[in-house]
Parts: sequence; C-alpha cells; structure tokens
Amino acid sequence: MIIVMKKNATAEQINNVVNWVESMGYAAYPSRGVERTIIGAIGDDRGKARLMSAEIMAGVESTMPILKPYKLASRETKEGNTTVTVGNVVIGGPEFVVMAGPCAVESEEQMMECAAIVKKGGAHILRGGAFKPRTSPYSFQGMEEEGLKILEKAREKTGLPIVTEVMDTNNVDMVEASTDILQIGARNVQNFALLKRVGQSRKPVLLKRGMMTTVEELLMSAEYILSSGNDKVILCERGIRTFETSTRNTLDISAIPVLKGLTHLPVIVDPSHAAGHWKYVLPLSRAAIAAGADGLLVEVHPEPEKAVSDGLQSLKPKKFYCLMEELKRIEGCIKREVQVVS
Amino acid sequence: MIIVMKKNATAEQINNVVNWVESMGYAAYPSRGVERTIIGAIGDDRGKARLMSAEIMAGVESTMPILKPYKLASRETKEGNTTVTVGNVVIGGPEFVVMAGPCAVESEEQMMECAAIVKKGGAHILRGGAFKPRTSPYSFQGMEEEGLKILEKAREKTGLPIVTEVMDTNNVDMVEASTDILQIGARNVQNFALLKRVGQSRKPVLLKRGMMTTVEELLMSAEYILSSGNDKVILCERGIRTFETSTRNTLDISAIPVLKGLTHLPVIVDPSHAAGHWKYVLPLSRAAIAAGADGLLVEVHPEPEKAVSDGLQSLKPKKFYCLMEELKRIEGCIKREVQVVS
Amino acid sequence: MIIVMKKNATAEQINNVVNWVESMGYAAYPSRGVERTIIGAIGDDRGKARLMSAEIMAGVESTMPILKPYKLASRETKEGNTTVTVGNVVIGGPEFVVMAGPCAVESEEQMMECAAIVKKGGAHILRGGAFKPRTSPYSFQGMEEEGLKILEKAREKTGLPIVTEVMDTNNVDMVEASTDILQIGARNVQNFALLKRVGQSRKPVLLKRGMMTTVEELLMSAEYILSSGNDKVILCERGIRTFETSTRNTLDISAIPVLKGLTHLPVIVDPSHAAGHWKYVLPLSRAAIAAGADGLLVEVHPEPEKAVSDGLQSLKPKKFYCLMEELKRIEGCIKREVQVVS
Amino acid sequence: MIIVMKKNATAEQINNVVNWVESMGYAAYPSRGVERTIIGAIGDDRGKARLMSAEIMAGVESTMPILKPYKLASRETKEGNTTVTVGNVVIGGPEFVVMAGPCAVESEEQMMECAAIVKKGGAHILRGGAFKPRTSPYSFQGMEEEGLKILEKAREKTGLPIVTEVMDTNNVDMVEASTDILQIGARNVQNFALLKRVGQSRKPVLLKRGMMTTVEELLMSAEYILSSGNDKVILCERGIRTFETSTRNTLDISAIPVLKGLTHLPVIVDPSHAAGHWKYVLPLSRAAIAAGADGLLVEVHPEPEKAVSDGLQSLKPKKFYCLMEELKRIEGCIKREVQVVS
Repeated sequence: MIIVMKKNATAEQINNVVNWVESMGYAAYPSRGVERTIIGAIGDDRGKARLMSAEIMAGVESTMPILKPYKLASRETKEGNTTVTVGNVVIGGPEFVVMAGPCAVESEEQMMECAAIVKKGGAHILRGGAFKPRTSPYSFQGMEEEGLKILEKAREKTGLPIVTEVMDTNNVDMVEASTDILQIGARNVQNFALLKRVGQSRKPVLLKRGMMTTVEELLMSAEYILSSGNDKVILCERGIRTFETSTRNTLDISAIPVLKGLTHLPVIVDPSHAAGHWKYVLPLSRAAIAAGADGLLVEVHPEPEKAVSDGLQSLKPKKFYCLMEELKRIEGCIKREVQVVS
Repeated sequence: MIIVMKKNATAEQINNVVNWVESMGYAAYPSRGVERTIIGAIGDDRGKARLMSAEIMAGVESTMPILKPYKLASRETKEGNTTVTVGNVVIGGPEFVVMAGPCAVESEEQMMECAAIVKKGGAHILRGGAFKPRTSPYSFQGMEEEGLKILEKAREKTGLPIVTEVMDTNNVDMVEASTDILQIGARNVQNFALLKRVGQSRKPVLLKRGMMTTVEELLMSAEYILSSGNDKVILCERGIRTFETSTRNTLDISAIPVLKGLTHLPVIVDPSHAAGHWKYVLPLSRAAIAAGADGLLVEVHPEPEKAVSDGLQSLKPKKFYCLMEELKRIEGCIKREVQVVS
Repeated sequence: MIIVMKKNATAEQINNVVNWVESMGYAAYPSRGVERTIIGAIGDDRGKARLMSAEIMAGVESTMPILKPYKLASRETKEGNTTVTVGNVVIGGPEFVVMAGPCAVESEEQMMECAAIVKKGGAHILRGGAFKPRTSPYSFQGMEEEGLKILEKAREKTGLPIVTEVMDTNNVDMVEASTDILQIGARNVQNFALLKRVGQSRKPVLLKRGMMTTVEELLMSAEYILSSGNDKVILCERGIRTFETSTRNTLDISAIPVLKGLTHLPVIVDPSHAAGHWKYVLPLSRAAIAAGADGLLVEVHPEPEKAVSDGLQSLKPKKFYCLMEELKRIEGCIKREVQVVS
Repeated sequence: MIIVMKKNATAEQINNVVNWVESMGYAAYPSRGVERTIIGAIGDDRGKARLMSAEIMAGVESTMPILKPYKLASRETKEGNTTVTVGNVVIGGPEFVVMAGPCAVESEEQMMECAAIVKKGGAHILRGGAFKPRTSPYSFQGMEEEGLKILEKAREKTGLPIVTEVMDTNNVDMVEASTDILQIGARNVQNFALLKRVGQSRKPVLLKRGMMTTVEELLMSAEYILSSGNDKVILCERGIRTFETSTRNTLDISAIPVLKGLTHLPVIVDPSHAAGHWKYVLPLSRAAIAAGADGLLVEVHPEPEKAVSDGLQSLKPKKFYCLMEELKRIEGCIKREVQVVS
C-alpha cells in the first residue's frame, strides 16, 4: 500500500500517518519527493483494506494498493495451470471442453432428448438447471429435486458428467449428492455464505462471473472457495453489463487472456447468456476458443420455441452439431493455449 | 407483448406466429402496416417472458414487452404510498427518516458509543452490521450472533429500533429474532432464495439496490418479497457501478423520482456506500432529501480511522450532527414529497 | 509516477528501469521493500504519460500515476473560486444562476415567446440552439446563421445574455460574434481542435461533460481551453451513460462535490438532457442546488409537443415558473456552497 | 412507432393522440386491447424521432420505435456486402486485411523503419498518425503536415496504401490530398460537421466506434457519411468503456456479428486501443478473425519503450510477425465469413 501525502502536508501530519501505519501492524517507509512525500506500508497484504482509511487523516491525498488482494488464486502462488478432472474429462488441460444442454430441466423426455443431442455432438459434459434463478417470481423456478433425479438418469444413459446450479446454502447437500460439478450462478458470485459452503465440498465448482463483477472481484470470490478448502474451481466469463443493448450482455472476451495471465485456474466461456440470442453463439464460441478459453458452456434445446426459459439463446440440434465441428477444426489448426506474458 | 415481423415476412410466417401465440395461451391481434405487420399478444402478463422466444421463428424481427413485469410493487396496483411502521417511526410518511450507525458492530463499547451519537443527533433508527459481506475472505466477517446481542443492548439503551443485514437463509431466524428491520444487501438483491425467505417474515425488509441492478430489476426483487407475503418493503438506492471512478459508485439520484413514480414503496438513500468517502456524504444527503427520498441510511463512527471496515466513508460525530441540522432545515423549507406525474 | 517491479525482478531489471527513467529526463528513486521494489519517477508532471510505457520493460509489474494530469484547472493551482461574469450575471459567485430556453431556435416567434417566459420566470441567461448536433442526419440540424440573428433579437428584447452551441471550428467566428457564452456540447468534449479554438476566444465557454467522460477527462478538456488562453470556463454535468435505461442518461450528482473539490471552475447542471423527460427535471434541479451546483441549464418550451427536438424533456411555462420558485426557496434556506474538504 | 396508452386512458385522450399523430403527417392506427390501447403511427421513418414527444400528452404511457433509424447503412437497403477497394487491396471481400503501423509518425527514420516491418510482415495497409487526439494538451499533438509528407514517402517506398486520422474540418483538404483512407477517430464519431465533410470526399473513410457509442449510433454516424454522398465506409470496433479496468477499454467482440447482421459495410477491429496493452493484442486479434471481422488495425513500433505515444500497446516486430503467421493459419482453416441470420 502506498499513501500519497498532499503537496503541503506538514512534517507532523507525515509523522502521524507513519505512527498510525505502525499502530496497524505495518512497517512504514516514507519517501520524500520534490513535490510531495509518499509512504509505503509493508506487511501482511491480506488485511490491507483497512489501510485505505488513511485517507481520513489530515494531509493525506490518496492511497494506492500495490499488491493483488488474492493469494491462492494467483499465478504468483502457483505457476502451472490447475486442471480439474471430472470422470475422464480434464478441464484446463490440452483439450477444449464443451459443456452443453438445456437452460432448465423441463421434463424427463426433454432432458433425455437433449442429452442424446449433446452426446451425439461430441460434447464432454451435460448441463441443465434444476434450480433456476429467475428475475420474476412468476416465472418457472425449476423442477428442483425432481430435476436432479432426471439429470442423474441422463448421466446414467449417456455417461456424461453433469453440471447444475446450486442457489442456496440449504440445498448444497442435495445438489452435491446428484451433480458432478456445482455451478454458482452470476447472481450469486458474491453470495459469500454460499461460496464458503461450496468451498467445503469435494465436488468441483463452476463459478460464473457476475454481470457486475470485475475480474479482480471474480478472483476474490474464487479465493473464498479456495481458502475454504476446495481447490477445484473453474471460472466462467458470461458477459458483463454495459450501455450496449444489441446483445443481452457484453461478452468480455479480453477477460480470457487477462484471467489466464493472473490465475492458474481454468477459464471457460458461456456465449449463450452473454449474447442472449442463438444467432451470435457460433461467432462468439469461435472467438472464445481463439482467445484462449479452456472450454464452453452452451445452451442447446430440441425445440427452443417451446423452452420454458432462455429459448431465444438456445441452439437447435443442427446448429449445435455445426458448432462442434467448427470448434474441432479451429482446435486442430491453432495453438489453443495463448501465451500471455504477465 | 408486441411481435414485429420482418419487412418481407410471408403470410405463412405471420400465420405461424399467430398460431404459436395462441398455442401459448394468448390471444393474437395482427395489425398490417404499410411496411410490416405487427402482432399484439394479449393475456396474463406474468408468463409473458416466454413470448420473447418468438424471435426464433421465421419472419420475426423483434419482440417488445409493453407491460411492466411487476404487479404488487406497482403504482397501478396501489395508488397511495405504502408506509412502514417500526416502533413509533413511520417510513414513507411525512417525516424524513434517518437510519445511522457504524458499518459493523466491532465491540460492545464501540456500538454503545455509536448508538449514543446517533441518538443525540436525532436519528430515528440504529444501523450496525453483525454479518458482513466482504469482498475478501481475509477481511473481518462480522461478530455474527454476538454482534446481534450487542445490537439488542444498544436498542434497549437508546430506544431506537435496529436495522441489520441478513446474508443467508440459514441465519434468517436468528437475525429476525433480534432485529426490527431485516436488511438485504446490494450483493444479495437477486439472491432469490433469501428474498423468498424474508418474504415469509413479519419483520419489514430494507432492500438495497445492487450496484448493477436496474430500477426494474429492483422492483422485481421487491416483487419476490411482496408475493411471498411480506408487504413491508423499503427500497434503498446506494449507487450503481459505472465507468466513473472518482466516487466508489455513482449515486443514481434520478432513481428516487423514477421509483416514486413507479411504485408505492418507500425509497431511501445510502450516500455512504454510494460515495465511498465521508466528504461527499453531506452534499449527497442534501441532494437525496431534495430529490424526494423518504429517508437516509448513513454511516457514523466515533473514530473512523480505527474502524475495521468502511472507515473512509463514515462520518465523525461532529459532522453527523451538522448533517442532521442541515437536513432539518431543508425538510422545513421544501415540500418533501416531489410530485411525479407518472 | 510510481513503477512497481515484479516480485522476482532481478537487480539488472531494476537497473534497466532506473536508467530508462533517467533517459526520459526524470529522476528515479528506487525503494526496496520486503516483497518487491518500487521506483518513484520525479520531474515535470506534464509529460509523464510516456512513463507508463515502463510496463513494457522486463521485470515491471505496473505503473501508477500519482499526480493529477491537469494544472491550470486544479485547486492546487488556484485556491479561490473562479467566477465568470456575463453582462451583470456572475456565474460561480454567491447567487445560483439559471440558464433556460428551448432546445433549438425554431422560428422568431417561438424564440421570442420562449424568451419572454424565461425572463418572466426570473432566469438569468437565455439558451437556444442554432447549430444542433443530432444523431440522425435526417433530423432538423438547426437554423444556423438565421438562428443566431433571432437569438440576438431575443437578447435585445429581454436584456438576457445568450448561450448557444458551436459545433465546428469553421463556425466559431460566426457564433462568437453573436453569443455571450460559447457552448461546447457533450459530443465535442474531446474535439480537441474545437477546444483549442474556443480557448483563443475572449468569450466564456460552457463546457458540457460527455456522456462517457470521466471527471478527470472533463478537467483535461477544460485544461485545453485554459492552456490556450481562455480562463472563463464553466463546467456542466449533464448525465453519463450507464446500464440504467429508465432515464436517458444517469445524472452524476456526485460529480458536483467532486468537481468543486478538484477545481476552482464553476459547475452547473443540465437536468433536462440527463433525465430526457420533463417529469424528472424538478426533483433533479432541486438535487443539483442542494448538492452545491452553481447553476442550472434547463429546457423550456411554450408547446413541447410541437418542439422539433427534445420536446419530451422541455418544461411547459407553468412548470418552469414553479421550478424557479422552488429554487429560490431552497437557495434561501440552505448554505448554497457545500464545503468539500479535498 | 408504437404509442402505448395508459391503462385508464380515456377515449378523449386516445382521440387527442390520434389527431396529433395525424397532424404530424403520419397515419394513426389505434388497436384496443383488453387492458390498454396501443396506437401505431405509420409513415416516413426518418422524422419519427419527433413522435417520441407523444409521451408528453395526457394518457400516454410510453412510445416505442419499431423501425431502425438508419437506411443507407442497413442490410434491408443493400443485401450484399459492400467492399472498399484501395489500390489493389479489397476491404470487406474474401481476404482478411491487416492495417498496421505506429500510433504516431514521430520522425522519418522511425516511420520508414515501421513501414519496412509492416511490409515484411505481409500487412496490406500502413497506418500512422500525423494529427493526434490526446487527452492532455501537454502531450505530443502530432507532426501534422510534416507527418503527412513522411507518410507519403513511406507509401512510395513500400507500395502500401496509407490510412491516417483527420481531426478537424479545416484539415480535411490537406489530409485528403496525402492519404488513401481518411480515419475518423473514436472521439469524433459524433462530430457531425466532420462526418458531413468527409462524406463529400471521394476517399474511403475508416470510422471508429466511440468508446461511448452504441452499435446503432455508430450506424447513424455512418449514415451521415453515406447520406452526404460517400459510400466507401469501413467500420471499426475498438473497445467500449465499461466498469472493468483490467483492460483500457472492453473489446465488444459481439459487435462484429451484430454489425455484420445489421449492415453491409465492412467491419474491422482495433485490438491495440481496446486492450491498451500489447500482451492482449494476439489473443484479441485471433478472436476478431474468428468472430468474423474483415480486418485488423494494429499498432507496431520498432522500439515501443521509446514511442511518444501508446508504446505500451504497440507490438514489437517479432511479435507482429508471429501475429501475421497466426492470422494466416486461422484464415486458412476456418470459413472467415460467419453466417449471421438476421
């Protein structure tokens, strides 16, 4: 942390800040410039947020953190890439991994049909929501426990591992018993009680970036899970909220190389929620693999116009097969891992 | 819902859309213009999100919702203003209500000192966090149950009702037993499980807008609470996330008259979290009352530089007393309620 | 400028950076911490942007500017408030100043009628656009030179000084000859050729913040005008672009105290363009004066439903008179100048 | 345009709106639903902005535009793709086009060295700024006319066509005489006087999206150029401003397929300005070609650490050659043109 003093700060004010920094348990290194003094505060980084209160003190202009607030998620802590293994699928390894399926489990018939499509297309993991976070209390809220049972059947039939969302600490036990990967949705990215709870799970966690979440905050949310004891965290970029309305959210494609530079965790992309429209899913998926993502989370539905939710952004089977072929072709011709020198 | 057909949509495509709309349980009213046909879909509004999937169908250009997705929160449902009574404090009535206190309960001594300041300044309700949502897992997470006990003592001593945050469904029973108002924090504004749970409570709920939540989404979150059976909801504008970094968030002052036009629920403002710096709290508080807010939620601390959290944005006692005097003076000279013709 | 080295930066890398800083004409002060070295670069601030390129060099983690990039606009350069005098109106002084009028000059009749309303309401300055920046090339582009002549007549009739927009360097001579204040519109806030040109004018300049301009960038644009020789600059907050769509832009009310803390220049507010709807103009105007603004720029039209542009956000005469009365009352009861300790 | 009446709108209010719509020169088609009446206004689209003022009238809830406000830029007007030919380079055709060079022309020596690198790497067009829009008046503002002469020499030497920025109507003649493509910078995207002026040029125009500009506004700015008589417009996505600060701007990768669906104009991407850091240029360039862009505008500098501007985001020669090879490989293995069904 660096504390920048005002141009006209007095020696006494500088002394007060130095004493205060030391009283907080840090070493203080003042450095007198021509125009103003700056004071470096050295010590354990993880409590440094409190040092920002220095701005209250007389003579202080501003404070600037120097170190990153996350530790376990950082490449400085672990240089190699973390891989997360689910069944015989390795996420974050050399192969690009596709997770696909419907937005919501709607019925056994619909889910089984979807699962067959996903399997046929060559995807690696099956997605489907049993608990659905909906903006409106009047919208379909998911089949809940019954939906989990259907997902288990779909796994049995296809052999594909399952990823499904858990929305509340009260349901973690139940969802954990059924799923292979616990998904934390965008709206719960800073539901800290839930993050701590899934941090105690032995199942991998797919953590979606919130539409309002900075890259640094996403890594801090991952840090909650990691510091609670679960090191199997997969990050997912799914679009951020901006002023642009031609897509539902704005896919932050740069977040892929930025994250790959900052963290050792795998990074996947959800183009369906980012765009909000199936017609942009193919170009955005191509962009995701080209930008260095480790995988994709994509919505597929046999009859999107009958879907109870997110029909507009779901791919029909034929388009999904095309996507899978395109991805294979790109995977073959480029070096998947983009080298980011951080 | 209006479905706009493409310029060159065929009669068959139009027919297909009409049939589909009817199959979803709505009446379809096509209207042929010179350039293109538009189709109105009439029926129960609350499931209409599904109709947006019409965009998948051949010949469809776009869909446009006409009705607001919230019912119980709407002024169309209830014309007069809702008032929420806590002890002998009425929120949403003729008097401007100030809720003040420290960010977090740090110790009995600190909380009692704060409570005395808040009482002396003439505020109406005492705030203080026992459960703290912190970006970092390494930051102070609150005194939890012990903090609630201290808050109860502070209430006993001062006679001021208490507002404190609840972060997880698992803790609602415990917090509910201690507090007078349940606060839902900005990061939990779309934690739907938690919204449903506090919707079953008989205690009033203070619902903070998320930093990336639209006014409409905030009202939908209120709708979750209202439709679960709790009609005592207070909305709180606390700044939204924008590109501007000179304040921590950007106080959306317009949201006050916008909300007052759309809903009958009381609307208060949290200038401390919006600005992130105590020096802007006075002007923003003055702006809030002038723009028609029903009250204020403001952070006060006897020694901000020693606060374990949010010290930078907390008012010192002397500044808090100044603020209270200024607010009284403005309250006296203006019509507090701004007339918004909606 | 502070250059933060990576944790594992070598002595040679540190040396290279020190040498490079010196080769750019700055003094370099390395400071070795426990975890990493930081290097302060001291010297003339105004060319320091180039030092950010240090991030290219091996071993460098990041760079952080310490000083503000503007000089003449800064309170550090001039402590007292700048006042701008136009006729017998003083902007930035003890009196709150209202500039009002139609969005565009549409005809002599309309403008004269508007001018009479503005005068009757007690406003100080008359606004009206002769050159109109319109998103669509097919929209009315303004009466141009003819409009300027009409504005001159309106000034003659009412005695009110005039403010009108200039959009292009080619027209500055013409507009300057007619107007009392040159307005730079939000879309031209970084039209640097135009800023330099009006910086050579002897007429005051009303500089509107762009809808995506930070406070710091606004001050840098002011710096263009000031450093070109014109010290009569009035800043105008008019809403920024955010994700919220219930108002056309989001009035950044915090920008008022933030600007008053950073600069000595007067700051006014345009609630009409911020909100995009007349029904929010009254509460936002009240908020503006309460937050410490020096004045208001507000749209008034005798028959808004017939206005060729911005009808929706224009006040009808009766509402304008109400607004003027409310402002007088608030001005009387509060200390207009909010003390910001910067 | 659709005008939605309030639930309780009276027959008289509906009549008034119908009459008003007709008085504005449009046909009005009211359609009475169960809950409320909606009124369609049919006629020439291009003046319809005025109809939004209907919201002022008693009984009106809201207005909703149906048609897109641009004509000439629209795919509805021209179905095939526009190609822009400069020398023997075709932009918007089957080949992916790379425009590369330094941010600014700094000296003849630097520019010639850059030009040789760009040529050697196999790029198609040479970029370099002679007039530089800089946030700070104290930063290097470009070599201006002398810079243009150097660019001409570089063209002569390499045979590569040139693209360079024009910032002010006063300089269009001069820049036009030297350059092959006129670039309009992000900050001038709504400098309407400049757009009209380059619309009268016979040279192609490279129009950069502003950091604050929606896709629709970008197309409206293109419409200014097209409707002034110049149909050789190339659009350039270069990042938008969001809350995320880990990159300088957020590259809106979705804008590529969105624009390709809405317009027939070529779309290129500037990853250098979007990211603000050279280390993200390679992954973002790969994403751009994969998402369907027609080309790239990229900054290259022989010694970025000595560049007078934007050194941090400029590629060194070796990295530039790598990029060119990667792009060739991707171009070979994928269908460059992504099919967007709009």
